[in-house]
Amino acid sequence: MPKVALAFDLGGTELRGALVESGGRILASASAPTLALAGSEAVIGQIVGLAGELRAMRPDAEVAGIGLGAPGPLDPKAGIVIGPPTLAGWHEVPLMDILISRFGLPVRLENDANAAALGELRFGAGRGAESLVFVTVSTGIGGGVIAEGRLYHGRRGLAAEIGHMTITGEGERCFCGAVGCFEAVASGTALGRRATALSASGDGSPMRRLSANGDVTARHVVEAARAGDHAALALIEDEAQWLGIGFTNLLHLYSPDVLVMGGGLANGFDLLIGTLRRTVSRRAMPAYRDVPIMPAQLGGNAGLVGAASLILWEGEPGAPIAIVQDEDASENPVSGEAHHG
Amino acid sequence: MPKVALAFDLGGTELRGALVESGGRILASASAPTLALAGSEAVIGQIVGLAGELRAMRPDAEVAGIGLGAPGPLDPKAGIVIGPPTLAGWHEVPLMDILISRFGLPVRLENDANAAALGELRFGAGRGAESLVFVTVSTGIGGGVIAEGRLYHGRRGLAAEIGHMTITGEGERCFCGAVGCFEAVASGTALGRRATALSASGDGSPMRRLSANGDVTARHVVEAARAGDHAALALIEDEAQWLGIGFTNLLHLYSPDVLVMGGGLANGFDLLIGTLRRTVSRRAMPAYRDVPIMPAQLGGNAGLVGAASLILWEGEPGAPIAIVQDEDASENPVSGEAHHG
Repeated sequence: MPKVALAFDLGGTELRGALVESGGRILASASAPTLALAGSEAVIGQIVGLAGELRAMRPDAEVAGIGLGAPGPLDPKAGIVIGPPTLAGWHEVPLMDILISRFGLPVRLENDANAAALGELRFGAGRGAESLVFVTVSTGIGGGVIAEGRLYHGRRGLAAEIGHMTITGEGERCFCGAVGCFEAVASGTALGRRATALSASGDGSPMRRLSANGDVTARHVVEAARAGDHAALALIEDEAQWLGIGFTNLLHLYSPDVLVMGGGLANGFDLLIGTLRRTVSRRAMPAYRDVPIMPAQLGGNAGLVGAASLILWEGEPGAPIAIVQDEDASENPVSGEAHHG
Repeated sequence: MPKVALAFDLGGTELRGALVESGGRILASASAPTLALAGSEAVIGQIVGLAGELRAMRPDAEVAGIGLGAPGPLDPKAGIVIGPPTLAGWHEVPLMDILISRFGLPVRLENDANAAALGELRFGAGRGAESLVFVTVSTGIGGGVIAEGRLYHGRRGLAAEIGHMTITGEGERCFCGAVGCFEAVASGTALGRRATALSASGDGSPMRRLSANGDVTARHVVEAARAGDHAALALIEDEAQWLGIGFTNLLHLYSPDVLVMGGGLANGFDLLIGTLRRTVSRRAMPAYRDVPIMPAQLGGNAGLVGAASLILWEGEPGAPIAIVQDEDASENPVSGEAHHG
């Protein structure tokens, strides 16, 4: 009878659930499109439904508790989803208390980027590190910070809002209203926007062919660069420089043992890392230049296994985390199975 | 027989020592010009000398241990002064072990900005807070961060190098080699440089009269602004905007309960705070806008009493810190006495 955590990754598009063992192994998983416009009660109903499906898939598993990652802003100690832009009608929802009363099990909530940071520290690219900065670069830029084995929360769990760190005075205004946010110049969205502005529908360029003459996205830029397209390679070069400026700040501010990059743009990590490293070496003070910068290893599962580990490590959110070298994890980190949904 | 810590604040210019009670009260103090060019052995000799003077001033005091703040980079766990630019010939000096063998007492070392942050949290502007960001704005910009009652150290104690956070693409090159460092555009040095460039020796302007027609410093700008000089007030306005951009980043990245500004430029805090707050309100995301921004209360003593509290709280560097409302401290925070040296 394996002991597992019931883990959820609540996104604006997809709700994913899994049964996860203490070593990070996923025994069963299921998912559903999030009813993001239907309010919190509907989504909580989906969580209850998925939990039932998962338990039916592995009736032999003993569920120790529920770990859930959800979009910020989110207060992990109070267990409250404060008001994520991607979930309509969610305002100060006491999700932890609601789930405790529905399931009668221990429940831990965490910001999704923090959950992914924990996942990468415990089962992924950051194994063995005490402190880690996780940066997710995709539509926006988000982050999670672990220092001396503890998630860095700050007031109301609002720390590490790294996408809205000002790094320049130029560029388009960010949706938050400021100019020069890291996210506004270095997200996948910003890269796609630059690529779209640089080309025209029907111009025959590789990026436009890949986008079927629609707007070019970061994925198209990476694909075209991989095929050797010069315009795409120049865009990747710019992107790597912006990432290098932001990452240098994160090294100076948090001094992690390792910086891990995830999110959609991590698919182009091998193309970005050369210029990115050179930018960091040029801008960082000497003591910070040798910090490893690595691609995430767990992809979309980082948040799920990180959320599960909120339960299986049995710490309170914010409590010290033992850095345990788990045998399962080192032999077989996060082998997904039984996908469903 | 009062129980005290022997505290030192080792600066590039001055070495200060004090006997400090657990409530932050300074029972005796002494200082000497640092033999900054003479190497570590000479300075350690000065520390031993000052310790003797202080003990002679209060022979009734029982010394529980030694807390020392020194310039970074500094590894507080290993107790090593790595190589501060202001102390010639110091390279990886194991100061903690050296002082333990000289005195036979417990010794704790801390980065000077971290020691000041602890001082302000325990005895100054941050009393009652769990998390605090301390920013010192003077020749350069330095910082100390406390999260959930613990100093934020990161790898080798190198976190919170906030002066070298890039916030813009403009301005003069920083001494570190990068362009756009917070320190390069917002330090007291940067303010003085702008004031000097804006005026000319002998032009009869209030700032030049205050500087006796030499280079204008931040102190002259603050003085002239206080007297109503328009040029100085415009410079203060610019300075407050740069500080506002940097402080907004710190709120987003660390999410403290309170942000405390110290250093020489804190003398102009009342002139700066209006525009500074408006800049933060315009740039910060809504959840961060109401964080108090306060002037430091302890001035030059913050580092001394903070270093003393490394001993009197009896925690290891990095260990949890009990937030104790000490009666002495609340009645009579840091009443200096018996100055000497």
